[in-house]
Amino acid sequence: MKRIINFIFAVLLSPVCLFAQGQGVTQCGTSTGQYPFPVQSYIELSDPSVPSSQQWSTMKQPCVSWGTTDVRYAKHKLPVLKVQKNISLTGWRGEKIHAQAVVWTGTDIDKLNYSFTEFKNGKGNIIPASAFSGGFVRYVMTDELNKDGRGACGSRPDHTIYDSLLVADGIDHLLEFIPMEKMSTRAVWVNCRIPQSAIPGLYKGTVEVKDGDKILSVLNMDIRVSSHTLPVPSEWTYHLDLWQNPFAVARYYQVPLWSQEHINAMRPLMKMLADAGQKVITAAIIHKPWNGQTHDYFESMVTWIRKVDGTWAFDYAVFDRWVEFMMSMGINKQINCYSMVPWELSFQYFDQASNSMQFVRTAPGESEYEEIWVAMLSSFSRHLREKDWFDICTIAMDERPMEVMQKTLKVIYKADSEFKVSLAGNFHKEIEKDLYDYCISIGQCFPEDVKVRRHTEGKWTTYYTSCAEAFPNTYTFSAPAEATWMSYYSAKNHLDGYLRWAYNSWPKEPLLDSRYKSFAAGDTYFVYPGARSSIRFEKLIEGIQDHEKITILRREFTVTGNKDGLKKIERLLSPFNLSSFPEIPAERTVNKAKRILNTL
Amino acid sequence: MKRIINFIFAVLLSPVCLFAQGQGVTQCGTSTGQYPFPVQSYIELSDPSVPSSQQWSTMKQPCVSWGTTDVRYAKHKLPVLKVQKNISLTGWRGEKIHAQAVVWTGTDIDKLNYSFTEFKNGKGNIIPASAFSGGFVRYVMTDELNKDGRGACGSRPDHTIYDSLLVADGIDHLLEFIPMEKMSTRAVWVNCRIPQSAIPGLYKGTVEVKDGDKILSVLNMDIRVSSHTLPVPSEWTYHLDLWQNPFAVARYYQVPLWSQEHINAMRPLMKMLADAGQKVITAAIIHKPWNGQTHDYFESMVTWIRKVDGTWAFDYAVFDRWVEFMMSMGINKQINCYSMVPWELSFQYFDQASNSMQFVRTAPGESEYEEIWVAMLSSFSRHLREKDWFDICTIAMDERPMEVMQKTLKVIYKADSEFKVSLAGNFHKEIEKDLYDYCISIGQCFPEDVKVRRHTEGKWTTYYTSCAEAFPNTYTFSAPAEATWMSYYSAKNHLDGYLRWAYNSWPKEPLLDSRYKSFAAGDTYFVYPGARSSIRFEKLIEGIQDHEKITILRREFTVTGNKDGLKKIERLLSPFNLSSFPEIPAERTVNKAKRILNTL
Repeated sequence: MKRIINFIFAVLLSPVCLFAQGQGVTQCGTSTGQYPFPVQSYIELSDPSVPSSQQWSTMKQPCVSWGTTDVRYAKHKLPVLKVQKNISLTGWRGEKIHAQAVVWTGTDIDKLNYSFTEFKNGKGNIIPASAFSGGFVRYVMTDELNKDGRGACGSRPDHTIYDSLLVADGIDHLLEFIPMEKMSTRAVWVNCRIPQSAIPGLYKGTVEVKDGDKILSVLNMDIRVSSHTLPVPSEWTYHLDLWQNPFAVARYYQVPLWSQEHINAMRPLMKMLADAGQKVITAAIIHKPWNGQTHDYFESMVTWIRKVDGTWAFDYAVFDRWVEFMMSMGINKQINCYSMVPWELSFQYFDQASNSMQFVRTAPGESEYEEIWVAMLSSFSRHLREKDWFDICTIAMDERPMEVMQKTLKVIYKADSEFKVSLAGNFHKEIEKDLYDYCISIGQCFPEDVKVRRHTEGKWTTYYTSCAEAFPNTYTFSAPAEATWMSYYSAKNHLDGYLRWAYNSWPKEPLLDSRYKSFAAGDTYFVYPGARSSIRFEKLIEGIQDHEKITILRREFTVTGNKDGLKKIERLLSPFNLSSFPEIPAERTVNKAKRILNTL
Repeated sequence: MKRIINFIFAVLLSPVCLFAQGQGVTQCGTSTGQYPFPVQSYIELSDPSVPSSQQWSTMKQPCVSWGTTDVRYAKHKLPVLKVQKNISLTGWRGEKIHAQAVVWTGTDIDKLNYSFTEFKNGKGNIIPASAFSGGFVRYVMTDELNKDGRGACGSRPDHTIYDSLLVADGIDHLLEFIPMEKMSTRAVWVNCRIPQSAIPGLYKGTVEVKDGDKILSVLNMDIRVSSHTLPVPSEWTYHLDLWQNPFAVARYYQVPLWSQEHINAMRPLMKMLADAGQKVITAAIIHKPWNGQTHDYFESMVTWIRKVDGTWAFDYAVFDRWVEFMMSMGINKQINCYSMVPWELSFQYFDQASNSMQFVRTAPGESEYEEIWVAMLSSFSRHLREKDWFDICTIAMDERPMEVMQKTLKVIYKADSEFKVSLAGNFHKEIEKDLYDYCISIGQCFPEDVKVRRHTEGKWTTYYTSCAEAFPNTYTFSAPAEATWMSYYSAKNHLDGYLRWAYNSWPKEPLLDSRYKSFAAGDTYFVYPGARSSIRFEKLIEGIQDHEKITILRREFTVTGNKDGLKKIERLLSPFNLSSFPEIPAERTVNKAKRILNTL
C-alpha cells in the first residue's frame, strides 16, 4: 500500500503542476524552473489517508471553532473538538501571541477566508488590525522517526520504508482564500504582535471566518495585555542560531547566486528570521563545509585562488555581500565562519595555473594545512578588521577529535591570536576556555561553574538539537509544543539560547514534501518558500519569547530581591526534564509553566 | 591478423614497461606517472611484421653502409642498399646538413654505437667534432591515410581498421648505445651544423660505427662547404609557425602546469623549435580554443574571472610566464592568440558568485559577445602595451563563415583599432587587408598582386598543411622528402613560410605509438619527448634552409642584376606542382632542385 502511495506521489511530483482553484492562478512546470517564483499558490499532495464517509456523514454544514496551537489537525479527519467560539490569550506588550481556528466541512467551500476586526478594551484603547496576521495552515508530506524510535539520523533513500502522511505545518499568508473539499479540515493560524505601546488591559475583538462574502462563523478573542514589556527581537538576549542556506534560495527561486534577484528572494525569509531573534550569520568560508549533506550544498563565500606563482589570494566580495545583506536585515551580532575542519578534509580553490577548480587534501597538524590556513586567516583577519567585523566574527568548528581541534586552534592563533572561536559539539573541558560561542547537544551538560564563569566572561553557552534526538525536536511530525519546550529547558539550565543546523535547507519541493534523502522529514528546514512560516517555527518563537521573559523576570526579581518570584520561576521550570519524553507530552508541561509565567 | 596485433599492442601498452637492455636502466610503470621523466630509454613496440629468415639467411655479420635520408629503413627488412662507405654532402656555412647510416645484422649486436672524428680540409682547417650530432633512428607505430587515399581527417577510434606498421621516425640522441637483435635494421642519423666561421672547401672525416669497442665499420664523409653563409635561425626570414602545446608536456612529464619543472621540461623542446627558425608563440587566451581536439587540450593562459558584481577581471600571469619563457628561447617575433571564434562558441570563466567554472555561450554579432570581448580585449591591449608586446601580438582566428569573421573584426577594433589579426583558413578577398598574418591551405592560392602588396606592407603570407592533404605531408608514414618539398613549393609561390597546427600535441605514448584517435598517425606532432627530433622534422628544417637560401640568392641576384641566376632559381622550382603527387616522389623533385641550388 505504501508503495502504491509513493508511486502516486512520484506521478504527482514530476512534473509538478501548482495551482489553486478559485485563485485565477495556474502555474505549471517542472521543479527546475519553468514556473514563475515565488509560487503564490499550489496544490498540496494527495492525502494518503482517505476520509471516512461514515465518520463525516453527520457533518453537513461547515463548522468553525477555536482549536489549540498544540495540535496539527489532520486534513482527512473530523477534529476532536468541542466547538469553542471564545478564546482568551495573554501576552506581554511587544510579545507575539497566536491561536489556531479550525474549519471542517461536510460540503465544499469555494473561498474560505478570514478577517480581523480592531481589538478594543473597555476604555476605548485599541490594538489595531495591523497587529494581526494569519495564514491558512498547509499540509505537507512527512515521514516518521527511525524504526527504533530513538532518533532520525541516517540515510533514507527509499521513502516507502517509512510511513508517509500529510501533516499540518506551513502557515500560508500569501493566499486571500483557499477552497475546501467536503470531508476535510483546514486550520487558520492567527498571530497578534501586541504593540509595545499598548495600554495594559483586556482587549476584545473577533475573527470572521467566511466563504467568499458569506460569514461562516464569528470567533471571539480576548487578549489580556500585561504591563510587562518584551523588547524588540533584535534586543533579546536569547542567542538564536539557526543556520541559513542562501544556496537553497537561489536554487529554488532559479536566480543567479548573489544577484539582486537572489538578495530580493532572501529578504522576506531572512526578515522573518531576524524577527524571531536570530543573532548569528552563517558564513561558509570553504567549499562544502558539511560535505554537501543538504540538497543545496554550501559554497564558499570566500574566493580562494592559488596563483600561478604558488601564492594564495583571497577575495571577500561574496562574503561581504552576504554579511552586509544579513546585517541590513537586523542580524548583526555575530558571524560564524565554517569551517577549518570540515568533515571531508578537502579544500577547494581556483587554480590559476590549470584554470580549474582543484582540491587540496590536508589535515590539521600537517605543514600544508598550516601554510594554507595561516595564509587564509591572516588575510581574513585583515579584511574583518577593515570592515570592523573582527570582534563579532568566529572561526566555527564542528565536533572533531580533541587532538584535531587543538591543532586547529594553534593554527587559528598563529594567524591572529585574537580570533574568536565557536564550536557545536560535545563538551570538552580542555578547550572550553578557547570557545567564545560553545554549543553542546541537548543531552549533554555544561558544569555549573563553567556556565557561570562563561556568563561573566561574556561568552555564549547554548545547546542544539539535531537528528540525534527523537524528542524534543522540530520535525514536521513533532508535537508543536516541543519547539517551545526546548527554550524552557534552556531557561531551566541557564543557557543562553539554541542552535539548529537548518533554517531553510530545503529539499527539492519544500512546499509539497518535507522528506529528504537523509534524516526525518522537516529536519532540514523550519520555514517554507514565500517566507511562509510554520507551526513549528511559531512555537519555537513562543519558547524564545518565554525564555526572554524568564530572563527579564529573573533579572528584575534579583534586583528587587524578590526571592519568592525567583522561586516561582525555578518551580515552573522544574518539570522540564528530558527523561519525561515521550510519556509526558510537551504541551502539558509547557502550558502549565506558561500559565504560571504569565501571572508573574 | 590486425586485430591480433592490436591486442598485443594493448597488452604492451598497459602498463608500459620502458627499458633498454644493456643500458643498465629499467623504468617501469603506467603511462600516468610512475616512471621518472624524462625517459632516457625505452623499448619500441613489437614489429607487426616478422623478419623473413630466408631473406636474412645470407646475412651473418653486421653490415654498415651510408643510406639516404629519404628512406625510412624498415626494422624487419634487409635494406635495399648497395653498401656505400663514402658519402659527399654540400652545404652553406651555417647550414645544418644530414646523412643517414644504416646497420643491418644477421647476429645480435650488444651495444651499437658511433662516433665522429674531426673533419679537416687540405689546408688543415677543421670542422670540429662538436659540430656533429646524431642519434639512433627509432621505430614508432603508425597507420595510414584514409581508405580513399585522399587525406587523413576524421575520427579513428578503432585502430584495427587501419594498417598498423612500425616506421623509422624519431631520432634518439639520448642513448649512448642500443642493442640490435639479429635479423633487424637500425639507422643512425648524422647532423652537421657547419660553423658560420668555416673556411669554404672540402672537408673529410669519418663516422665510426661500433659494437661496444669493436669497430664494425668506418664510414667516410666529405663535406663541401660553400662560400655562402646562412644566417642563424633567429635571423631567417622564413615565417615558421608550428603550434606548441605546453599542456602535453606537463601531462607527459607529470609536472604541475607552469611550474619551474614544467618550464625545465619544455626548455630543450622549445630550443629545438627555435633552432628550426620558429617565429611565433602559440598562446591560448580561452579555454579549449580548438574544442579539445588534441590529447591534451589547450587551457586558457589568460585567467577569466567574472566577479560577483558582474564585472570582468583578467589576469595575465600565466600568459606572461609562457611568453617570457618562449622569448628566452629566442622565439620572440610574434604571439598568436587563440581564439575569439573557437569551434565551440562557449567561453569558460571562473565565476566568483558560484565559486565554479562556468561557460557563457555567445556568438559574434550578439551583444553579450561584444560586451565580454570588448572587456577582455581592452584589458589585454593595456597589458600588451605595458609589456611592449602589442606590436608583435595578433588576435588569431581559425576559418569561420565570412559574416562571423567580419563581426569578430568589428569587436576587435572596437576594443583597440590597432590590434593585429591573423587567420589560418581559406582565402577571402573581403578581409585580406585586415590580416597581418594570413595563412591559407596549401591547395589554395593568393592572387599574385595581393602577395606583392602584402610583402611591401610587411605582412606575412603563408600556407599550411593539415589532415586534409594526403601529399605532401608529415605523417609518420609520409615520405621524408615531402617535408622538404613543401618549402620549395613555398619558395616557388613566393610565400613567406609555413604553418602546421601541431609541433608537439603528443598522443598518450608518443615514443611508442604515433597514432591518435583522430587523423593519421603523426599528424599531431613533429618531435618526441626528450627533445628527440625526427626524420620529418630534420627534413622540414632542410626545406626551410633551402627556402632561406633561395630567398637570399633571389635578393642577391636581384641586386646584382643576375637574371640568369634568377631564371635558374625559377627553373629549379618549376617542377614543384601539387598535381605531381603521388606519381612523382617528393625526393626526386627535391634532390634534383637541391643539386642545382647548391651550385648557385
